[in-house]
This record gives sequence, structure tokens and C-alpha cells, in this order.
Amino acid sequence: MKPIQVGLLGIGTVGSGTFKVLQRNQEEIKRRAGRGIEITMVADLDTARAKAVVGDGVKVVDDARAVIANPDIDIVIELIGGYGIAKQLVLEAIAAGKHVVTANKALLAVHGTEIFAAAHAKGVMVAFEAAVAGGIPIIKALREGLTANSIQWIAGIINGTTNFILSEMRDKGLDFDTVLKEAQRLGYAEADPTFDIEGVDAAHKVTIMSAIAFGIPVQFDRAHVEGITKLAAQDIKYAEQLGYRIKLLGVTKRKANGIELRVHPSLVPSKRLLANVEGAMNAVVVNGDAVGTTLYYGKGAGSEPTASAVIADLVDIARLHTADAAHRVPHLAFHPDAMSDLKVLPMSEVVTSYYLRMRVADEAGVLAKVTGLLASAGISIDAVLQREADEVGGEGSTQTDLIILTHDTREGTLDEVLAQVQALPTVLAPIVRIRKEELS
Amino acid sequence: MKPIQVGLLGIGTVGSGTFKVLQRNQEEIKRRAGRGIEITMVADLDTARAKAVVGDGVKVVDDARAVIANPDIDIVIELIGGYGIAKQLVLEAIAAGKHVVTANKALLAVHGTEIFAAAHAKGVMVAFEAAVAGGIPIIKALREGLTANSIQWIAGIINGTTNFILSEMRDKGLDFDTVLKEAQRLGYAEADPTFDIEGVDAAHKVTIMSAIAFGIPVQFDRAHVEGITKLAAQDIKYAEQLGYRIKLLGVTKRKANGIELRVHPSLVPSKRLLANVEGAMNAVVVNGDAVGTTLYYGKGAGSEPTASAVIADLVDIARLHTADAAHRVPHLAFHPDAMSDLKVLPMSEVVTSYYLRMRVADEAGVLAKVTGLLASAGISIDAVLQREADEVGGEGSTQTDLIILTHDTREGTLDEVLAQVQALPTVLAPIVRIRKEELS
Repeated sequence: MKPIQVGLLGIGTVGSGTFKVLQRNQEEIKRRAGRGIEITMVADLDTARAKAVVGDGVKVVDDARAVIANPDIDIVIELIGGYGIAKQLVLEAIAAGKHVVTANKALLAVHGTEIFAAAHAKGVMVAFEAAVAGGIPIIKALREGLTANSIQWIAGIINGTTNFILSEMRDKGLDFDTVLKEAQRLGYAEADPTFDIEGVDAAHKVTIMSAIAFGIPVQFDRAHVEGITKLAAQDIKYAEQLGYRIKLLGVTKRKANGIELRVHPSLVPSKRLLANVEGAMNAVVVNGDAVGTTLYYGKGAGSEPTASAVIADLVDIARLHTADAAHRVPHLAFHPDAMSDLKVLPMSEVVTSYYLRMRVADEAGVLAKVTGLLASAGISIDAVLQREADEVGGEGSTQTDLIILTHDTREGTLDEVLAQVQALPTVLAPIVRIRKEELS
Repeated sequence: MKPIQVGLLGIGTVGSGTFKVLQRNQEEIKRRAGRGIEITMVADLDTARAKAVVGDGVKVVDDARAVIANPDIDIVIELIGGYGIAKQLVLEAIAAGKHVVTANKALLAVHGTEIFAAAHAKGVMVAFEAAVAGGIPIIKALREGLTANSIQWIAGIINGTTNFILSEMRDKGLDFDTVLKEAQRLGYAEADPTFDIEGVDAAHKVTIMSAIAFGIPVQFDRAHVEGITKLAAQDIKYAEQLGYRIKLLGVTKRKANGIELRVHPSLVPSKRLLANVEGAMNAVVVNGDAVGTTLYYGKGAGSEPTASAVIADLVDIARLHTADAAHRVPHLAFHPDAMSDLKVLPMSEVVTSYYLRMRVADEAGVLAKVTGLLASAGISIDAVLQREADEVGGEGSTQTDLIILTHDTREGTLDEVLAQVQALPTVLAPIVRIRKEELS
């Protein structure tokens, strides 16, 4: 059988890795796929760089549309990134009847509905294992491996840059700015790290996982997105003393009244495997009603780990494109005419537990006053950590840190009571509030 | 589209779970599969028990062949177990043109070649996600998620009973026999626990994973199988002091000269996630040349976790059976005409590192003598732990435990040198030897 011919749009880090791994393992991949898979045409604005990677045997052009127009090309890999020209080219490739493989989480989290509808109408596959958690086959696990389950929740470390920064902050007791600079020097963070450190990248990924888990459309605009830039070293230390580590989590949960969809720093019990995922590694925990808790761990970024996912998608297409389109694995796990209308909940409706740090005057009755307000709102307390008074204020008064872990509560309820607590004259600085996920 | 009709052979723990989960999640499963999936006929010798589970709407018979002969049945689930009648029935179901789903690791590890050949010839699918690591979709990850990779090695905790026993031995400092009794009382170990504690169950599972990872036929008879019954509490304690935990691992590795395939207790560095998999949980680490190290964690047994895998297979078949048979995902990941002829290596050719415990006379020169013998065989030493002398032998002499961690060495070489060490008059008891996997 003649090889599947693949056209590659954009040959940067992941594209180069894809080309190299396909070459290196071509025999083995062919034995698995049943036929050869070859990149025969590459489009990149930097044709010199592209030629340096692929050599003379592959046609290199600077016009992506020439790849899409090539009738010999069966599959187009989009590795350009972003929502702009990438979206246009993916839609054009679909219209031309090409299967598409993409690692573009931003594109799918924002425009997935339009893209998958176009692919469905045309009867082609759009595969995107590389869009979430790099080389970890988490899309396949969610979409095919756990189909028996009513999935209850997902919580993942899905951004390596921020996990590297948080690991370093904890290990070395350094603050965020210092570690960010180190991460940039080592290549773990980009020159403009905004998408990573502000949680946007993780939110793209959890948006995609949420859609696949719960059968809802991708709704990036409804995700709550909060990064790690405001995280203080002392909160990492206090969390540790209470038996927790702080991780940037993408969380999505099925509740009776809707879907939670959120990215923010979270306390995670130190004994959980997820809390022990260090450095730039990724891991996703998935809880289903039948299977219970499962975890998937690996490299979430990098040239060859991401290429591993891109190529797995190529093999999937090579193996399965002969299935009639009505029967194939649906793009978002559920058939498009059987999506759920569960709404994404606003943050005020989210129910979780919290770590609260308050700078308070070291006076009798402060703890009673604070816990009294929480109790009056029905918020019960899991643990309290009161530090020794450590600072002399004006007129000989002393101050201290009061740390409280709450049990589950509605975030809207907490917001209201924290406004009251903040207004107490004995609360001397803005209250720090970090969500906590027990993952049990 | 009319529902897929499924016949179930054997409705014990996993069969009941499969029926219940299919009923409970039928709407959601249908939305994923594109059509309903219904168990419409059950065969079990205990028809009363079967009827108690499935109620009046499902036909219950005591003759499995009546299910296979039913022309309305599309898929047969085999949950009888063992190599006997189960093998015959699976072959008959295939001959009748039914797709088969089975959780029977013993059957596939021993007779997989014959069964897959029959299925291939007939153009039907034999799916077996539930055969390895229960609810963890590890077969799918290996066969489809990591197809880009030249897989280098797999190491897994794939037997919950033994992991529960080892976790308890470590936590409570108890010996094997005591913990086994507790595990039997709690239902974590069967009345006859031989298959679990002697490593046979784990060997069935790693045999299947090895075939899928490396494209070799299943060869259970070539696997090295060693259980945990001889493990002493003191070795768990010494390992801990050296920064390791002892786990029963299924290990399979690709080497230049062949494939390693073995089950035995292993030291694992405490800092690895795999070392922190506790109780009856399972986890499998897979290393591929492109993706690096990935890990898959979850419940490896139990009614609904195993049902989760059985039903995922049903959904896979519902989704993909329309693909032409030549293109479907091959049973063992590689197309049957493209298998590797790599041989399974004898244990003497295995290369790994070792924990050695020797009871030695507390005399000057013993350590020098032992390490000298190891050095002369080219075996280098990673760490030594010498205990204080703790026992008075005859005539006022004292004894001590000498623990040595070696670097990688050929097992055959170690066997030879250990025979020399054992013959030393200052080595007072049989040397304990446990393999060590760094998993790096």
C-alpha cells in the first residue's frame, strides 16, 4: 500500500521533532500503521531553516496553501499556532478534504466548535492529542479509554513552565520573580511568559478536556483564569507545614447545576501523587464513576514528546480513516447531535475549600471574631495555624499571620464573609485566599 | 440505529459490574458510541445468581454456546477466566463471526497467538483492555497513544494484592505471612492467593504488554516469574534506609540482543512516583524514545474499575467495527505480518543492578574480601550499608548484616561471583539478592 503523504505547516521545535521521529522510527511506525507515513511537503516562511531540517528529499515552500492544494497530500499537520492564519488554513485544509493534525490548543479552545463542525460536515478527522499535555495520551484516555464512565472531575498540572517555577520556589524558598528569571535563562519560560504564568495556556487545555469529558462545547470564554504571579513564598511554606503543596491546576468538575471550569493555584495534599509531580512535568488526574481515580503523567512539552502525540494522531488516521465517518470516534468524544447543554458555572457558584492567610493584630479575641463570622455563614474550619507574633506595629502592638483551612463552601458565600472579615479593624492587610483541592 | 447486542459469558464480580455500569451510564455511553450498547443475553452456570443481577429483561441461560449461536448477538464478552472452556468458547465465538471482549489475561498470555490469528482470519476484533491493570487504559496507551515511539522499557505495579501486602509490610513493619492473612480477611487476597503472590498474574500482564510494546508474540513460557513470598521485613527496612522501596514489578525492556521479560520484587528509588503507589493501586511506567517517561495510574482490579475497561472495549468496537479489517488497530499493535523476531532473553543475560544482603562475621577484612570479588568480576558498587554487630555467635564472635547496592551488571556474571562470595567462610547465611530498577 502506498505511504500516507503528509504536509507540514510550520517547522519549528515541534515540527522538527515530528520530522525527525518519523524518520528515525519509520520502520516501526509502518509496522504499526500498516503503511508508511511520510512528510513529503513542508511550508514555512523560513524556507532555509526548513530545508536544513528536512534535506533535499522533501519539497519546501513558503506558501502553506500550496501544501493544502497538493492533491497527493492526505493529511495536513498545522504547527503554526495562534488563532489567525492557522484557523484559516485549518478550515481550508478541511474544505480541501484533508485530514488535519494540530497541536494548537488556543485555536481549538476558542474556535473548536466551528472547526469540528466543518470537519464533521466534510467527513474528515481533526486530531489534536498534542494540544493537551504534550506526549501524554490524555485525549485518547478521555475520549476512548474511559467511555464507560460518567466522568466526575479532572484536575491537571498542564503547564510545565509554571510547575517548574512552583517546584523551584518550594525547593529553594525563592520568590516568583527570581525563579521566573532563572526559568527564562534555562529555557523553561519564554521571553514573554504571559500565556504560561497567567494561566491562559492551562485554561486552553482544561477547556478542551472539559468538553471531551462532559460532552459540552469548548467555551474558553467561560473559564476562570488565574495565574501564579501573585503567589508568595510564605504561602508555599505555610501550605507545606499544613501538609499541602501549591500547584497551578486546571480543574473541571461535573456538578448537579453545571460544570466548573477553572485554572488557579491550588493547595493539594502532599501525599497525593499529583502533589509530587515536579519540575516541568505534567500530570492529569481523571475521576470517573466506574473507574475511580486515574492519573496520567509525562512530559507536557518539548520537541519529541509533543511530536510523539502528533505522530500518534497520524497513525490513528492511517489506521481508522476507512471507518465510515458516522462511526468514527467523535472529535469531542460525544456525537455532535448528542452534546450536553450543561452550563459552565460562574465562580460564585463553585464549591471548594480554601486556604486563607490574614495579617492580624495579636490581640485576644481576633481568632474568635474571624471564626465566628465564618461560622455564621455556615463555613466550617478544617485547620488553623496561628504563628507567633513576629512584628511590632505602632505603640508596641504586635502582629501575626493567621492561617485557616476551610471545608467546602460556595465561593460566593466566602466572598461575602471575607468582605466582612477584611473590614475588621484587627485585620491589617488584604486577605490572601488560595483554593484547595483534596482530590479524594 | 439499532443498539449493539452483547452476550455475556460469566456474570461474577466483573460481569455484574459491567451490567450495572452499562445500565447506569447507558445514555452517556450511547451519546459517545453513536448507538446503544445492551447486554441482551447472559450465560452462567448459576442462572439464579445471574437473574438476580440482570432482572427479567435479559435472557439468562446456563449454556454459553446458546449465546454464541444467537444470530442477534454482535459482541461476546468472555469473563469466565482460565485456559480451559474459556479458550474454546472464545474460539467458537470468533468462528461464529462475533467480536470478542475479554478480561482473561491468562488466556491471552498463553494462547494469544492462536486467538489473535483466528480473529484476524475471520475479520473480527478481540479486545482486552481489562486484561491488564483493570481500569487503567494502558493497552490503548501502548497500542495507540505511543505509536510514534520505539518503546524502550515498561515497569509496572500490575498486581494489587501484592502491592497491598508490600505497602502493609512497610507501613507496619510486619512480616509477609501476617499481612497475607490480613489481606485475605479484607478481601484483597483470595483464599488461594498463589497466582498473585507468586507473580503469575503479574507475569501474564507484563507478557501481554511486552508483546504490544515490542511487536513480539506473547510468550508467557519465556517470562521469569518470582513472587514476594520470600521477602523479609528487614530488607524492606534496609531498602528504606538506602532511599528505596520494594515493589513487585513486571519489567520488560528492549535490549540490543533481545527482550527482557520478568516479574520479581524490585527496589525502586523512593522519590519516583511509582514507589509511591500504595495499597491495591496499580501503575505502569512506559519509556519511549520520543516521549520519554510516562506513567499511568489507577485501580487495577475490582468490579466497576474492570467493567470500565470492558465497556471501553465495547464502545471501541461499536465505533470502529466499520473500518475495513486490514486497517483496524492490530490486536498486538503491530500488523501480524510485521512482527519482530527479537528473542526473550534468559535471566543470565539480563542487565540490571542489585541489592545484596549478607550475614557476615564481624571481622576485619570481610568487606574488602567481598568487594574485591565483585570488583574482579567488573561489578562496581553504588552503596554499602554496614550494620553494627548485633549478635554474638559461638565463642564470643559477633555477626552483622552487610548490604551492598551494585551498579548495572549481567545477571549471569553476578550469579558466578555470588557463588564465590557465598563460599567464603565469613559469609554465614544464604545471600539475599533483590533486583533494583532505577527507572531513569
